[in-house]
Amino acid sequence: MRATVMYGAGDVRVETLPDPVLQEPTDAIVRVLRACVCGTDLHPYRSKPPSAQGAPMGHEFLGVVEEIGSAVSGLRTGDVVVSPFAYSDGTCEYCCEGLNTACPNGGFFAGAQAEAVRVPQAGGTLVPLPVGEDSPLLPSLLTLADVFGTGHHAAVQAGVDERTTVTVIGDGAVGLLAVLAAKRLGAEQIILMGRHKERTDLGREFGATDVVADRGAEGVELVRALTGGHGTHAVLEAVGHRPAYDQAVGVVRAGGVISRVGVPQYEDAPVGMGSLFRPNVTLTGGPAPVRAYIDELLPDVLEGRVEPGKVFDRTVGLDEVPDAYRAMDERAALKVLVTP
Amino acid sequence: MRATVMYGAGDVRVETLPDPVLQEPTDAIVRVLRACVCGTDLHPYRSKPPSAQGAPMGHEFLGVVEEIGSAVSGLRTGDVVVSPFAYSDGTCEYCCEGLNTACPNGGFFAGAQAEAVRVPQAGGTLVPLPVGEDSPLLPSLLTLADVFGTGHHAAVQAGVDERTTVTVIGDGAVGLLAVLAAKRLGAEQIILMGRHKERTDLGREFGATDVVADRGAEGVELVRALTGGHGTHAVLEAVGHRPAYDQAVGVVRAGGVISRVGVPQYEDAPVGMGSLFRPNVTLTGGPAPVRAYIDELLPDVLEGRVEPGKVFDRTVGLDEVPDAYRAMDERAALKVLVTP
Repeated sequence: MRATVMYGAGDVRVETLPDPVLQEPTDAIVRVLRACVCGTDLHPYRSKPPSAQGAPMGHEFLGVVEEIGSAVSGLRTGDVVVSPFAYSDGTCEYCCEGLNTACPNGGFFAGAQAEAVRVPQAGGTLVPLPVGEDSPLLPSLLTLADVFGTGHHAAVQAGVDERTTVTVIGDGAVGLLAVLAAKRLGAEQIILMGRHKERTDLGREFGATDVVADRGAEGVELVRALTGGHGTHAVLEAVGHRPAYDQAVGVVRAGGVISRVGVPQYEDAPVGMGSLFRPNVTLTGGPAPVRAYIDELLPDVLEGRVEPGKVFDRTVGLDEVPDAYRAMDERAALKVLVTP
Repeated sequence: MRATVMYGAGDVRVETLPDPVLQEPTDAIVRVLRACVCGTDLHPYRSKPPSAQGAPMGHEFLGVVEEIGSAVSGLRTGDVVVSPFAYSDGTCEYCCEGLNTACPNGGFFAGAQAEAVRVPQAGGTLVPLPVGEDSPLLPSLLTLADVFGTGHHAAVQAGVDERTTVTVIGDGAVGLLAVLAAKRLGAEQIILMGRHKERTDLGREFGATDVVADRGAEGVELVRALTGGHGTHAVLEAVGHRPAYDQAVGVVRAGGVISRVGVPQYEDAPVGMGSLFRPNVTLTGGPAPVRAYIDELLPDVLEGRVEPGKVFDRTVGLDEVPDAYRAMDERAALKVLVTP
C-alpha cells in the first residue's frame, strides 16, 4: 500500500509499504476513506532530526472495516467507522470513566495518512457510522477523530457553560473548533485570539463574538478591555508554544481555568504566586479522550447542527500529502483533507 | 500596645507600637483574644533579609470588636468575631461568587500577633461568633481564620467526595486539616505523607487511612503501591516547596487534580508532556477564600463534630511569640496559640 513517511524536518515522502495485517486477535484492518494532516504533525515537520528510519505519519482517519480479529466484537466488515487518534480497550476503569487516553492497553496512532491502517483494540476504539462511503458528511465526521473532540475537551475541562466567558488562543483547526464547542455549550462571550483573517472569519461563523489579532501584552490588554478588566472565566489554549501559555495567564480571570489542548512544546512554565497561584487559576487539559465524546457529538454532526468539517479548506490525494504539509506549514492551508 | 515585628530571618521581637485607630469609615478595631503563628510565617523567618524597618506579623486572629467605623454594618462593639486572613468588601462580584481573596478592595492581614488590630472592610470581613470570650471552642474557631479553611479549600478545589481517593502532602497544620476536610467531605481513602509521628498520629485521628513517611521517589512508589499503581484522584499539597510539587506529580492519578494551598516558594515548575499534560492532570489552588467557607464550617465546629483546634500543641503569651517561632521552626511545636 501507499503510505506517508517522514524522514526529518521538511522531508515527507509517500512510499509503498507492506499492507497491514492482523497481528493480535483484538486488531482490525481499516481501508482509509479520509485522513488529514494535523497541526501536531507540523511540530516534527519543523524540528525532527534527519533519520534513515522514517516515521509513519497521520493519526486521524475514517474508513471501511476490511478484516476483523477473532476477539473483536461490535464491528462487521464493510462498516464505515471513525477512529479516535488514540486507541483504547473500552473496558478498563479509565475508559469506563471517559479518560480513554489513559487506557493501559491504549496508545496513539501513527500511519493513518495511508491506504490502510491496522487498528489495535478495534472493538474499544472504532465507532460505526450510519453513513455510506460517499457521504458528504465525511469531512465533518472525520473531525470526530481529533480536532472537534479536542476542541470540545478544552471547553469541557474548562467548565464552559452559558454563564462562562471564553478566550480561545489560536486560530488553527483546534482553536476554531474550540470556538464551535464553546458556542455549542452555550458560552455567552467567545473571544478568539488569532491573526489570520480568513481563519478568524470562520471563527466568527463558528460563534466567536470578538476577535483579537494582537499577541503578547497588547493582545492581553485588548482581551481585558473586552471583559471589564477581568479577563475570561475560561481560556482554551490551542497552540502549545510557551508564548501562548503566557498569553493564557494574562487573559484568565481570577478563579478561572486555563485549559490546554495544544501539545506543549515546553516542559517548565510559571505556576507560582506571579502567575497561577495568587489568583486561584486552574490549569487543566491534555490529550483529549475523543472516543468518550463521540457519542455526544455525533448526533449534532449527523443532523447538521454543527459543521466542523468547514475547517478543511483543501483536499489532496495521497501522493500530494507532502504538498499538504508544505501548505499547512506556510499557512497557505488551514487543514488539508486526504482522500487515499 | 504590644505587637510582634520581624526584622529579618530569625529576628522576631515584641515591641510597643501605637494603638491602632480607625482610618477609614469601613474599618473596625478588634482586641485580639487569640492569634497564632502560621507555617507561612516561617518562610520569612528563614529567609527575610535583615532590615531596620520591621514587618508586623500575624494574619490569624479572633477577638472582640472595640470600635466600628461609620460605614460598617452587621457588627456591634463587644461582638466576638473571627477574621479571615484576607479582608474583603463582601459586595464585589468576586466576593459574591466566593472568591474573596480576589476582592479588588481586599488584601492580606499583617499585624495580628498583637493586642489589637485595625480591620479594613470590617463589615465584609469579620464574622460574629455565638460564643463568649472564654469559650473552650476558641482554638477550633481560630482555625477558621486560615488553616481549616485552607485545608478545606484544597479539598474543595480538588473535588473531593465519597468516590475520591486522596493524598495529602505535608503534616503541618494545613496538611492535617486538609485530612480533616477530606474526611468531612467523605473521601474513601486518605494517604498522609509526613515524617513526624506525633503529627501523623493526629492525622490518623483526623481521618488519614494510611501514612507514608518516605519522600521523593520512595514515597511516590509507596503511594502507588497503596492505590493499585494508579495514584490518587486528589493530591492536596500543603507545603509549598518544589519537592512537594514534584511529589504531587508523582502520586496523582491520570485525570486527577493537584490542589495546592502551600504558598509556592518557586515560580516555574514542570507542566508539559512529562508531568501534567500527558495524563490530563489538573493543577489548581491558591490563597483560600476562607471567608466564603466559614458559613459552612462554623456549625460543625460549634457542635463539636470536628475539632480542628487540636493542631495547637502549645500556648504562649504575646511576649513569648519569638519562642513560638523558634519552636515551630525547629518542629518542636506543630502550631502555637497566642493569648495576648
